[in-house]
Amino acid sequence: MDSIGVLDRDACRALDEGDRLAHLREAFELPDGIVYLDGNSLGPLSRTARARLERATTGEWGSGLISSWTEAGWMKRPQRVGDRLARLVGAEPGEVIVSDTTSLNLYKLLLAGLQARPGRSVVLTEEGTFPTDLYVSEALAPEVRRVTRDRLVESLDESVAVLLLTHVDYRTGRMHDMAALTEAAHAVGALTLWDLCHSVGAVPVDLRGCGADMAVGCTYKFLNGGPGSPAFLHVAARLQASLRSPVRGWFGHADPLSFSDTYEPAPGVARFLTGTTGILGLAALDGALDVWDGLDMAAVREKSVAMADLLIRLVDERCPGVEVASPRAAAERGSQVSLRHPDARNLIDAMARRGVIGDFRPPDLIRLGITPLHTRFVDLWDAIAVLADLLSPGRW
Amino acid sequence: MDSIGVLDRDACRALDEGDRLAHLREAFELPDGIVYLDGNSLGPLSRTARARLERATTGEWGSGLISSWTEAGWMKRPQRVGDRLARLVGAEPGEVIVSDTTSLNLYKLLLAGLQARPGRSVVLTEEGTFPTDLYVSEALAPEVRRVTRDRLVESLDESVAVLLLTHVDYRTGRMHDMAALTEAAHAVGALTLWDLCHSVGAVPVDLRGCGADMAVGCTYKFLNGGPGSPAFLHVAARLQASLRSPVRGWFGHADPLSFSDTYEPAPGVARFLTGTTGILGLAALDGALDVWDGLDMAAVREKSVAMADLLIRLVDERCPGVEVASPRAAAERGSQVSLRHPDARNLIDAMARRGVIGDFRPPDLIRLGITPLHTRFVDLWDAIAVLADLLSPGRW
Repeated sequence: MDSIGVLDRDACRALDEGDRLAHLREAFELPDGIVYLDGNSLGPLSRTARARLERATTGEWGSGLISSWTEAGWMKRPQRVGDRLARLVGAEPGEVIVSDTTSLNLYKLLLAGLQARPGRSVVLTEEGTFPTDLYVSEALAPEVRRVTRDRLVESLDESVAVLLLTHVDYRTGRMHDMAALTEAAHAVGALTLWDLCHSVGAVPVDLRGCGADMAVGCTYKFLNGGPGSPAFLHVAARLQASLRSPVRGWFGHADPLSFSDTYEPAPGVARFLTGTTGILGLAALDGALDVWDGLDMAAVREKSVAMADLLIRLVDERCPGVEVASPRAAAERGSQVSLRHPDARNLIDAMARRGVIGDFRPPDLIRLGITPLHTRFVDLWDAIAVLADLLSPGRW
Repeated sequence: MDSIGVLDRDACRALDEGDRLAHLREAFELPDGIVYLDGNSLGPLSRTARARLERATTGEWGSGLISSWTEAGWMKRPQRVGDRLARLVGAEPGEVIVSDTTSLNLYKLLLAGLQARPGRSVVLTEEGTFPTDLYVSEALAPEVRRVTRDRLVESLDESVAVLLLTHVDYRTGRMHDMAALTEAAHAVGALTLWDLCHSVGAVPVDLRGCGADMAVGCTYKFLNGGPGSPAFLHVAARLQASLRSPVRGWFGHADPLSFSDTYEPAPGVARFLTGTTGILGLAALDGALDVWDGLDMAAVREKSVAMADLLIRLVDERCPGVEVASPRAAAERGSQVSLRHPDARNLIDAMARRGVIGDFRPPDLIRLGITPLHTRFVDLWDAIAVLADLLSPGRW
């Protein structure tokens, strides 16, 4: 944003005019009259998601009925949608499936990881990580070692079975150095399990380049898969044969339709499937991924950084008393800007009444998502104008 | 069917004319030109399911966006749809949630049941039960005792933690006496876990009347929830406080939106929720349940029995060489008729090419589902006419 002199609404409009991704907004069915800065919590409905869901409903279910399990490819849908998603996290086809929820996928992979490191009893994670990650760890590991971010590397030792980290923090947006931490974990023989809920579709992720072992994430945030759309699960190809899912469902069997009494895990990542896949949810996600086809994640990131920098500058200039809780250095930040204010909850509610949708995270954070596919620079201006007005003397 | 003298197509038409449930067929969008006897595998699309899904997509997701978690009631949707479903299995509101898959729900409840019976190591189940039930049991229990159906009661002893049974067998349709087996299990202090996949919407089920402890089931068969629609899970109210879910997801927390670091299970059956609920799948199911509103399960059962008896009589009269593999006594049978023939797989394929859809189950079963909400008596005539023709000399 250094190129902007006077920062006003027209300057923001000019940024939109020069934005090579601006046309992508047309892919979405956004309600009129709102500024939606919550795509990091629930992404909006896209035209392709709607169309794909309609095709799955009318064509595949309504007309094809049971034959669609084979003829429409439902049986392999979790793998095929996973293959499409793999590119966005730097994985290869055959390393990702889409199924179940993030909580369940965490459970399956964390337990598989613990079993793959017998004699090690520790899951190492970070203070303040997403609650489910803690709950699941504490139910499964003999010891959960929770340390602050700066003490992660020194806390890795040969008692650690799995390093479990949320790549981008859900509250502050602070981002870990995946490559460095994965390397440090491997140096002591630990496996890594990355929670990518706030990363996928938000920042470039290179699981293979980082040598990462396992990952999970949701698809209803930046990927716009729909409310509660199925989660994904990644296992590096080199590890797949050595890891077993603790939940032996028939869809994770090598040959589900054999109805064999003997469990034989599917050869690849599909062994982590459990029961019958929710086809309608998968269809909406499949359609939502159309928007990402051919899209360069570096271009998305470039716009995301420009937008977050702009938002921070607007807050600095126009919102005294509001602290920027996200890292100011783009390299340390995901695709959100969190603001700290003692009245955060009331401010979020008041903003929503004026059409600016963000969300509140306890105890004092206003969380604003940066979603370059459907957000305009002028939206950021308008959002901060509302916040500044609410904060002006006599208004609050 | 004793009242029918000459059994011909007109007699079947007459049965349809006298059928008080005949109008329900209009609730479904069935393709023209097929006889669908596979509603026990995937129920058809209903107009109400479509409408409810459209409302969730356009209204709740598209327009409501993130606010729908509270304003459209998404947060409590698994409980509310569970409350609607409870009536169909003889449970009370607050005893059923709809979430995840049958495999995962089995896993959660079986592990919770084993933990609730410390010192007991055995899961008792039946030879030939659905594969997932075996796979899950063998992964979790120190000992899985598999016996034939006639030896179940004598195999119950004080080493048994959980009696896990599929109420209606997926291959033959043979139905257990839930009340008697639950009583026998309780007499030795074991818990019961009933798999109701082939029971819910197919036969009257009275979980509370039988004193049953836990149950799971799918919703995409007789309930017509859609492909891979979310499964249900039942825990009797008296047991809920004493059972813990092994999978501690944030939606099973007493207060998910507190984002607390400390896991505190929700007070009721909701503790068995895991991650973020798939709202689109739940919406289709919610709409599909509209068809069941006010419907007397006894009337559905009455028609189901009449249809199955008719089908068996048609096979006996017209299909020499075909063995009826389902019980002839209605009281021992769910809502399907399975036929045994050495060429079952080829016959099913040939029937499908002539518009009669059933399914094959290894090694030699033709499985025909009886679904009184959308199947006519004349459909059964037409189906067996095709089968008889295929079996006629020179044709096969």
